[in-house]
Amino acid sequence: MAEAKQLGGAGLRGQSAGETALCTVGKSGAGLTYRGYDIAELADKAQFEEVAYLLLYGKLPNRGELDTYIARLKSMRSLPQALKTVLEQIPADAHPMDVMRTGCSMLGNLETEHDFSEQHDKIDRMLAVFPSIICYWYRYSHDGVRIDTEAQDVDSIGGHFLALLHGKKPSELHERVMNVSLILYAEHEFNASTFAARVCASTLSDIHSAVTGAIGTLRGPLHGGANEAAMEMIENWKSADEAEREILGMLERKEKIMGFGHAIYRESDPRNALIKKWSKQLAEEVGDKVLYPVSERVEAVMWREKKLFCNADFFHASAYHFMGIPTKLFTPIFVCSRVSGWTAHIMEQRANNRIIRPSADYTGPEHAQWIPIEQRP
Amino acid sequence: MAEAKQLGGAGLRGQSAGETALCTVGKSGAGLTYRGYDIAELADKAQFEEVAYLLLYGKLPNRGELDTYIARLKSMRSLPQALKTVLEQIPADAHPMDVMRTGCSMLGNLETEHDFSEQHDKIDRMLAVFPSIICYWYRYSHDGVRIDTEAQDVDSIGGHFLALLHGKKPSELHERVMNVSLILYAEHEFNASTFAARVCASTLSDIHSAVTGAIGTLRGPLHGGANEAAMEMIENWKSADEAEREILGMLERKEKIMGFGHAIYRESDPRNALIKKWSKQLAEEVGDKVLYPVSERVEAVMWREKKLFCNADFFHASAYHFMGIPTKLFTPIFVCSRVSGWTAHIMEQRANNRIIRPSADYTGPEHAQWIPIEQRP
Repeated sequence: MAEAKQLGGAGLRGQSAGETALCTVGKSGAGLTYRGYDIAELADKAQFEEVAYLLLYGKLPNRGELDTYIARLKSMRSLPQALKTVLEQIPADAHPMDVMRTGCSMLGNLETEHDFSEQHDKIDRMLAVFPSIICYWYRYSHDGVRIDTEAQDVDSIGGHFLALLHGKKPSELHERVMNVSLILYAEHEFNASTFAARVCASTLSDIHSAVTGAIGTLRGPLHGGANEAAMEMIENWKSADEAEREILGMLERKEKIMGFGHAIYRESDPRNALIKKWSKQLAEEVGDKVLYPVSERVEAVMWREKKLFCNADFFHASAYHFMGIPTKLFTPIFVCSRVSGWTAHIMEQRANNRIIRPSADYTGPEHAQWIPIEQRP
Repeated sequence: MAEAKQLGGAGLRGQSAGETALCTVGKSGAGLTYRGYDIAELADKAQFEEVAYLLLYGKLPNRGELDTYIARLKSMRSLPQALKTVLEQIPADAHPMDVMRTGCSMLGNLETEHDFSEQHDKIDRMLAVFPSIICYWYRYSHDGVRIDTEAQDVDSIGGHFLALLHGKKPSELHERVMNVSLILYAEHEFNASTFAARVCASTLSDIHSAVTGAIGTLRGPLHGGANEAAMEMIENWKSADEAEREILGMLERKEKIMGFGHAIYRESDPRNALIKKWSKQLAEEVGDKVLYPVSERVEAVMWREKKLFCNADFFHASAYHFMGIPTKLFTPIFVCSRVSGWTAHIMEQRANNRIIRPSADYTGPEHAQWIPIEQRP
């Protein structure tokens, strides 16, 4: 403590806390790359499983590798009975991120990582089973149904999620949008949840502990909850004109408007245009005349008035809504995606580890004098 | 990312990550204070509940406040039925820290912190109920017994833990030693688990998420597991002479010896002398002629050969063992204590928050060229 370096920037802002080969965020104010690949190219051309493979195994898979990987993930979707029993204990009004956190933690009791040689198995299992965890709880607590989480007729993780939620095979369009969404949310350098996962991993703890900690961190409204908050805002408005009036009022009252701006990006969030075009297509599919125009107007007003741009979360709100996804499940979908980035970071931390143990600036009393309890005021 | 400051010290060593008024570690190489009070004075004169109050409410309680606080904690020991059912799903061979992590996470589903105004209630509840969580699982999975976790005839948290574990009121000496132990482990500035809790709290997530993440972080063998590892080492040796031979061999083979040295302390760990004297007294009580002499010899040899001092964990191993505590429950006891420090830090983070979001040094490829899947090698 005595020798702690004095640095500006609360929250370690702008300070390097380590190395990564996984991601760049905000280079030249706007870019996002996963292992050097531009996010726009990945969102346009890749499958989510391909991106997860890239993050976790260090290269894009060839056809045989990808087919094998998808088949492997598909085979790992079932829930152990003890985990189902745990999920059935969680009430319908619980916070869905608490459900994810508890589901992941419980999985760690039943399928403990005993050795780092098992890390790839544990990671693949989490990727495959997280949609099962959240949908099993949701359908049981809300509809009283014990779903079969295997749903073998859908290959992709995003499609599997929709199939479990709605009880039917999703359309090609919906499966495609989920795929894009999972790619966009997969990885984002040393954001708070990823950093929490690395701090945990740096004690050489197990992978379920690190991911459980990351889920709890993503839960915070300053981090993963923005798309839900955006949805709760825009669904109140019946027209673009009403939205404009309301936004102007909120700005005047200096209220926080969720889904805009970013801690790192300066000019724009590269993920916004990528999800926006799919939100538009979904709006056309469902014949929406309200939510998409409202979203576009909010975007325009925020830029005109404040030069604030939409981040990844804003058009995710309408996109998810058009696919019939309940708002409270938005952040758990983020988990189903980001677990790929978290676990890639955990492996990277383990490969070149030193325990993450910063110092603090002490602001308390230098020496406090003990007073016997009977003499205390 | 582009502007990340270049700093020495992997793992943020020696770098300040924020402010705290709770604790100083290693001032002048040796000291430890909680809110300015020296650890030796607290361990000698205070009760653990008094120290928890100091950390959580900012001052030492007077008699009335302490009596009220202890009575309040005592009234919060019972487990909800859903949490019992969850604990009963966890097998006997699970890692006890996975049980703590899952128990805390599940509690968050059942008694969610909806607003920070509830934080003191949630904290007191965790302090009171953590011994119930670990002992209920332990006794059910190992002995097939569903214990009543109320055990109203013991006031202290440490005594409550022993009563639940052994099914009887502990001796005065054992209750006193548990009390000292919980005080020694209560708080330690920005150690990895506390820092993980603060990272989580900085997203304005709920308190169960932050504590769950801290438990998973403490689980790592570089952090909370040292007293268990020390026990597993010393229990193999039948005499001090054998211990000396074995230690010399381990040093020659450059094997890691747990329970010695520290990331921050340079000269000694102030907690060692404080627990050592109680370990000695317990050894006399049980008529031990092996474990305590073995421990003392290991301490002497490590100092003679390497100038390495015992940290807080080393004599905790024998002390816990003399009280009949199974080795696998050592780190969960650490949780029952440190939850006081973690939650004091969470409240401190919330009171002056900025999201903890560092940058990283990028070491990956600058630009990777997309290759269509059919053309990949």
